[in-house]
Amino acid sequence: MKLEITPQGVIAGSIPLFAGHPARDLLPIDSIRETVERVWLEPGVTRLFNYGAEQGNPELIDFLVERLRRAEKLPVARENLMIIGGSTWGVDMISDQLTRAGDVVLTDAPSYRDALHIFRDHRLELRDVPIDGAGVVVSEMERMLRELKAQGRVPKFYYVVPNFQNPSGITMPENRRRAIIELSQRYGFLIVEDDVYSDIRFEGELPPSFYALAGGENVLRIGSFSKTLAPGLRIGWLIGAAERIADFVGGGVLTMGGGANPFTAAIVAQYCRSGEWEAHVRWLRGQYRDRRDMALEALASAMPASVAYTRPAGGYFIWLQLPRSVRVDDLAERSREQNVYFAPGTGFFVEPDAGLHHLRLSYSFLPPEDLHAGIAVLGNLIRQMSR
Amino acid sequence: MKLEITPQGVIAGSIPLFAGHPARDLLPIDSIRETVERVWLEPGVTRLFNYGAEQGNPELIDFLVERLRRAEKLPVARENLMIIGGSTWGVDMISDQLTRAGDVVLTDAPSYRDALHIFRDHRLELRDVPIDGAGVVVSEMERMLRELKAQGRVPKFYYVVPNFQNPSGITMPENRRRAIIELSQRYGFLIVEDDVYSDIRFEGELPPSFYALAGGENVLRIGSFSKTLAPGLRIGWLIGAAERIADFVGGGVLTMGGGANPFTAAIVAQYCRSGEWEAHVRWLRGQYRDRRDMALEALASAMPASVAYTRPAGGYFIWLQLPRSVRVDDLAERSREQNVYFAPGTGFFVEPDAGLHHLRLSYSFLPPEDLHAGIAVLGNLIRQMSR
Repeated sequence: MKLEITPQGVIAGSIPLFAGHPARDLLPIDSIRETVERVWLEPGVTRLFNYGAEQGNPELIDFLVERLRRAEKLPVARENLMIIGGSTWGVDMISDQLTRAGDVVLTDAPSYRDALHIFRDHRLELRDVPIDGAGVVVSEMERMLRELKAQGRVPKFYYVVPNFQNPSGITMPENRRRAIIELSQRYGFLIVEDDVYSDIRFEGELPPSFYALAGGENVLRIGSFSKTLAPGLRIGWLIGAAERIADFVGGGVLTMGGGANPFTAAIVAQYCRSGEWEAHVRWLRGQYRDRRDMALEALASAMPASVAYTRPAGGYFIWLQLPRSVRVDDLAERSREQNVYFAPGTGFFVEPDAGLHHLRLSYSFLPPEDLHAGIAVLGNLIRQMSR
Repeated sequence: MKLEITPQGVIAGSIPLFAGHPARDLLPIDSIRETVERVWLEPGVTRLFNYGAEQGNPELIDFLVERLRRAEKLPVARENLMIIGGSTWGVDMISDQLTRAGDVVLTDAPSYRDALHIFRDHRLELRDVPIDGAGVVVSEMERMLRELKAQGRVPKFYYVVPNFQNPSGITMPENRRRAIIELSQRYGFLIVEDDVYSDIRFEGELPPSFYALAGGENVLRIGSFSKTLAPGLRIGWLIGAAERIADFVGGGVLTMGGGANPFTAAIVAQYCRSGEWEAHVRWLRGQYRDRRDMALEALASAMPASVAYTRPAGGYFIWLQLPRSVRVDDLAERSREQNVYFAPGTGFFVEPDAGLHHLRLSYSFLPPEDLHAGIAVLGNLIRQMSR
């Protein structure tokens, strides 16, 4: 079942703990409005309403290249980056251009549900590798690669959300990243790094990206403004080797329709170049950290000791492990009666049953009182059900 | 070679007769700016910056459904229509969801080059059927279907631009549409009707759409605001049977990213509901009719009698047939030396050589003086080359 999140809020009185959306009150609507005013004053504003360059808004490309060079010391150039219509566009375009039906794709168990959905739409054969508290277990990945190789098969790519993973909130440390890059070179597959949460970092440092560690070879890295500005603008970016980016830019979709939305890309470019985006990101970190803290406090007081959960250092999500006596589908049914909705673990695995005792909570979208109330309802139900 | 159409115009001094873009001075920039002002005043404007409903902006859906019922007496309901990110999105999504590599797709010879590009990206096997002055030749299509059937194959769909075709400008009459629907039922394939030019009608009436003639069964019809408002907003629509639309709306791409750009869709919705769009379309028809007339006058005075060309009753394009002694690649090379660029016929056929004596001119984008000058250059070259 899919709840509609209406303009007035979610269905009257319900608590959607599943919603991985930015909080409404954290969207900088007034700043976007002022930004649009400035866009109208740009020379050549007319071009924003015609077909745009296939690679995307040039000013936004320049801004992002400069930021990657400055903040990550990443030796990228214009030809390594293109603007896309949100991370979704990236995942879809990569699947379109680099795979055909029946190809194998590796993911984590659990992995991001909606990306699995896109891969299934492309009729890809998904294999997921278990994670622990530090992300995917490398020895398990190697075992799977050997197994595939014995069948004469090689995955097309490994899809991973490396930082503050959706759904687990876990960040993969550098040594695992290096080990996976080594496997990708040995077995010959690409790494698709869906890195949309890295700017929502509450504490600590992030390891270098797969892209950085691999020297830009055979890694495609996706970024997005959806989590740090506004999903409704539908703007993100893709980084890769120059020849791969050129292939995407020269594909039929971009040749026919031009680049990612020229008007909203220009709004984002203007917002970034004024310095507002980076200031907003710094502010957002504190806001989402407070929400993460509230969610963890609520969990600490509401959950029985038999429930384990992650403590993410960034991002939007917490991943819960239920006692073996509690099935997540039963819990979902009973929480629905109290108007509390969450994302059952079953959606995040290639084999749904592997998620029968897991669930994902999102602390990004809900007002604090709903977050508390929803978690309290779940805690009570789990206590009752695990008796 | 691909020319960049820069904010300052096309590469200094050149004449891009290939550009199938709306003319810059016909984009209603000031009205769009005023429309955006009204969008900020909408209740619940915040929702436009979060993830949007998968089916697309509800007000725009309602507007389009009402317009189709009113203007075409088409018995469509909300569940028959979804908002898409331009016609490109429609062609790509249909290819993604309804085909797999190796499937056969029928098109016209010639057909829209960039759609062929998208089909090739999906590794579809393209078969094109010759057209005459009234569109695709039905007996040839039937011959091809029989030939395919003998190999145990059925096309997945027939892709057609039925009104003011890109590249020929030709409109297919009702009797052919009915005959093709009959074939689609007999052989079991879908019809994908890319109908982005029907509102740019200069004279006469258009036949009912394939969608209307087939009673909405097994036809997907694509519409767009790119030709009648502004390509840079990236908004169009798709009409089909309710269960097909539900399949698209429930796909991974829309589940992950939400519906087509919520902000620009709201701008389009506001512009449509105020009545401005239909008024703008009426005005545009006169503007593009004048340009079509100028192009035909220029052709009449510049071209030798050995050159045949179409006289479109709408749309953006004229299709030229060169004398057999003139190859289009030679002409392109020589016209390039004079900074005149056009779209060679070779790009519009499955077998490029079939277009060796054809070319497409666009009269939509260029100022009248460039249109005249460019056509004069081509006429002179053709005269010289066919001596």
